[in-house]
Amino acid sequence: MLDHQNAVPTRPRVVIVGAGFGGLTAAKALARSPVEVTVIDRRNYHLFQPLLYQVATAGLSPADIASPIRAILSAQRNTTVLLGRVTGVDPDLKRVLLADRFVPYDYLILATGARHAYFGHDAWEAHAPGLKKIDDATQIRRRLLIAFEQAEAEPDAERRQRLLTFVVIGGGPTGVEMAGAVSEVARHALAKDFRNIDPGTARIVLIEAGPRLLPAFPESLSAIAEQSLRRIGVEVRTGQAVTDVDKEGVVIGNERVDSATMIWAAGVAASPAAKWLGAEADRAGRIKVNPDLSVPDRPEIFAIGDTALVSDGMGRPLPGVAPVAKQQGQYVARLIAARARRARVMIPKFADELRKRNHTRVSGLVARLSLKFADEFQGRDTSDPPAFRYRNLGNLATIGRSSAVVDFGRIRLHGFIAWLLWGAAHVYFLIGFRNRMAVTLDWFWAYLTFQRGVRLITGPEE
Amino acid sequence: MLDHQNAVPTRPRVVIVGAGFGGLTAAKALARSPVEVTVIDRRNYHLFQPLLYQVATAGLSPADIASPIRAILSAQRNTTVLLGRVTGVDPDLKRVLLADRFVPYDYLILATGARHAYFGHDAWEAHAPGLKKIDDATQIRRRLLIAFEQAEAEPDAERRQRLLTFVVIGGGPTGVEMAGAVSEVARHALAKDFRNIDPGTARIVLIEAGPRLLPAFPESLSAIAEQSLRRIGVEVRTGQAVTDVDKEGVVIGNERVDSATMIWAAGVAASPAAKWLGAEADRAGRIKVNPDLSVPDRPEIFAIGDTALVSDGMGRPLPGVAPVAKQQGQYVARLIAARARRARVMIPKFADELRKRNHTRVSGLVARLSLKFADEFQGRDTSDPPAFRYRNLGNLATIGRSSAVVDFGRIRLHGFIAWLLWGAAHVYFLIGFRNRMAVTLDWFWAYLTFQRGVRLITGPEE
Repeated sequence: MLDHQNAVPTRPRVVIVGAGFGGLTAAKALARSPVEVTVIDRRNYHLFQPLLYQVATAGLSPADIASPIRAILSAQRNTTVLLGRVTGVDPDLKRVLLADRFVPYDYLILATGARHAYFGHDAWEAHAPGLKKIDDATQIRRRLLIAFEQAEAEPDAERRQRLLTFVVIGGGPTGVEMAGAVSEVARHALAKDFRNIDPGTARIVLIEAGPRLLPAFPESLSAIAEQSLRRIGVEVRTGQAVTDVDKEGVVIGNERVDSATMIWAAGVAASPAAKWLGAEADRAGRIKVNPDLSVPDRPEIFAIGDTALVSDGMGRPLPGVAPVAKQQGQYVARLIAARARRARVMIPKFADELRKRNHTRVSGLVARLSLKFADEFQGRDTSDPPAFRYRNLGNLATIGRSSAVVDFGRIRLHGFIAWLLWGAAHVYFLIGFRNRMAVTLDWFWAYLTFQRGVRLITGPEE
Repeated sequence: MLDHQNAVPTRPRVVIVGAGFGGLTAAKALARSPVEVTVIDRRNYHLFQPLLYQVATAGLSPADIASPIRAILSAQRNTTVLLGRVTGVDPDLKRVLLADRFVPYDYLILATGARHAYFGHDAWEAHAPGLKKIDDATQIRRRLLIAFEQAEAEPDAERRQRLLTFVVIGGGPTGVEMAGAVSEVARHALAKDFRNIDPGTARIVLIEAGPRLLPAFPESLSAIAEQSLRRIGVEVRTGQAVTDVDKEGVVIGNERVDSATMIWAAGVAASPAAKWLGAEADRAGRIKVNPDLSVPDRPEIFAIGDTALVSDGMGRPLPGVAPVAKQQGQYVARLIAARARRARVMIPKFADELRKRNHTRVSGLVARLSLKFADEFQGRDTSDPPAFRYRNLGNLATIGRSSAVVDFGRIRLHGFIAWLLWGAAHVYFLIGFRNRMAVTLDWFWAYLTFQRGVRLITGPEE
């Protein structure tokens, strides 16, 4: 077990579960606060998910959009990184539970993210994988490239057509970007590589159950996105729900679309964090948090990002995007920092009390005192920052090569300029000089050559 | 089935199995010859194996050292690429057999490479994986990084020491480069990332059964390599054979070395190509070829690279390195091109004969005639190039950061200049502008920052 499990806390311990956009932002924002931070993640890297679809479509390498969490936080002396899978939380004893140990906290930030959800049709996942992890992306890349390889060797026209049909389910930013990228792979990157098939004849179907693509954008930009996709050969089907998915393809209403490669971009569900706490959640598993993002009746536990259900002020939930998670991470860090500064006054008292009793090694007592002490400074206070409010700085989505839509509220852009803005914003928000350079280089090269540099079929055969 | 299976050949069909250094060089050298080339490989990419150890040690991304075979050969109109696993050869009917089809040939080039061999101890592979494929490299990278993570969380000192002990078995270039890179990861890249362990205290053991490291190099350079490795903290043990490998570590003679991460760089064996043909092979499975690299009694079948056993003129076999394979690919392509030019004269005769008999659709007859015809031009001729001779242009091996040994025969270099030469040579031989840029960028960044950009733990958990 780790040393700190039974140690007397000299500063409040903040445990952050999940090093996505929310968790990592919170950890960095606490760098100079008088707290001890522990970041726990199942993976050793922070993933820049908005570009994951480019890994799936052979445009970028996994390492270009991932940075080791340890390396990001190595200079932050008050922070420890733990690689591990959280199995639960004991909110009464204030402990995070892992498979083979537990980590005590004074404050807990749950930033555990979401994964794709199939609305009760879990069997669909095997046929139409979603895109949340690096291994998801390399698996989709594998399926995409294998489909063209098999089509090249397939003498039967009907089966060849099925192999050359790609279905993307879900018309949000991920679905739109994915469909555009698949079209680009087929029409440009692979154009001259085959002898028996013409990859440019691939059929790409984008299905959205709602009335229009990109529902979070203004209607005018949705229409432009649809038009741009159609121009590059994507078959857009809005207002049509997928009613079945199997090995051979999808069913839309009464129509079957035979396909060998289906990609799920239709829905996500939050991690089981709400279950760990027994907290109230919406159908997607998001915890209904207080205005300060704390969990009801647990002022020392916060949920942020995809783990939290927060209203946008007009009754709609905030979307599951990076800026929301980052602003929430920032907000919670500020709140905890304010309380930790207040706690500073109390810590000497607590240490004194322990010293008087000469019981530093009696962990049961320490734990009890620690909890009592924590209760004193973890409560709300009038000096806390006001309730969290999201500032929407804009929405961006790209549609294949040289085209994007950008919504800055009053300013709306589309086309090449929007695409450059989209690229610049994504490079800017990437973590680390190496990744920024690598992505810029790969994009520049792809733009000039129409090629995709990462066309590797790797991983275990299915 | 593919069209060409029963078609009348209008030009000799050259089938190349394997798109490694040998096979790819042969294919490219045949670009302008009057032949139909088919390249068959199990994977869709050509891999630059000399840098695979850098993928395993988090320095490079897989895509940086791999290029899609289709993209490399897409402009070569006489060449078709097939993704598939060859299961055998029928040398009498002149067909290469795949799982679900066969591909007929007039000339066959077997460039199927090698994989690691455990000299009868196949059980060792699970504990000490070798390094031949991209998936091998990402698995070793995973084990390497996980070991440090587990050590960070391990309270028991003895088990922590085992987790921080890395054993590399085999003192050839791969073993030397691997040991140097592991030392660099521990001493530089991870130096500041942990709180409970000091990665710099990692123990790295390099074991070589022979009397010295890098046996293919002059003794003076072997000594320098050993010295350089010792200086960066690698424990070099020459003249000591590993007698057992299990989950907990290795046994050297009577001594146990507890280790959680063992890497096999001690031996390779050729692919089963010799078995496909029933050809005579040495213990490592390499086919004993004729001086023109053809298989005895099969003048139309050639074996090159790691698949062939060729003497260096002084009774020693040529080493399994890229330059040997590439020169052999070049040689065989020249030989086949010469014969194909002679065949040009005969093909009209053959077509005439078929037309006269009006039997173009009777595949049995076509096959018989095709064989008869092939026999005429596949034999040796006095206008063939002379026997293959290897021109050794030099040997290079790197030893961690800023150090390498280079042997150009009379000129021998070591240290920083040798390291620059090593880097320049490897970038030069990489295929494609994108990969050259990506590798240069990653190396430059690593050199300046002492970091490694590709520290991702991916893939299925073991």
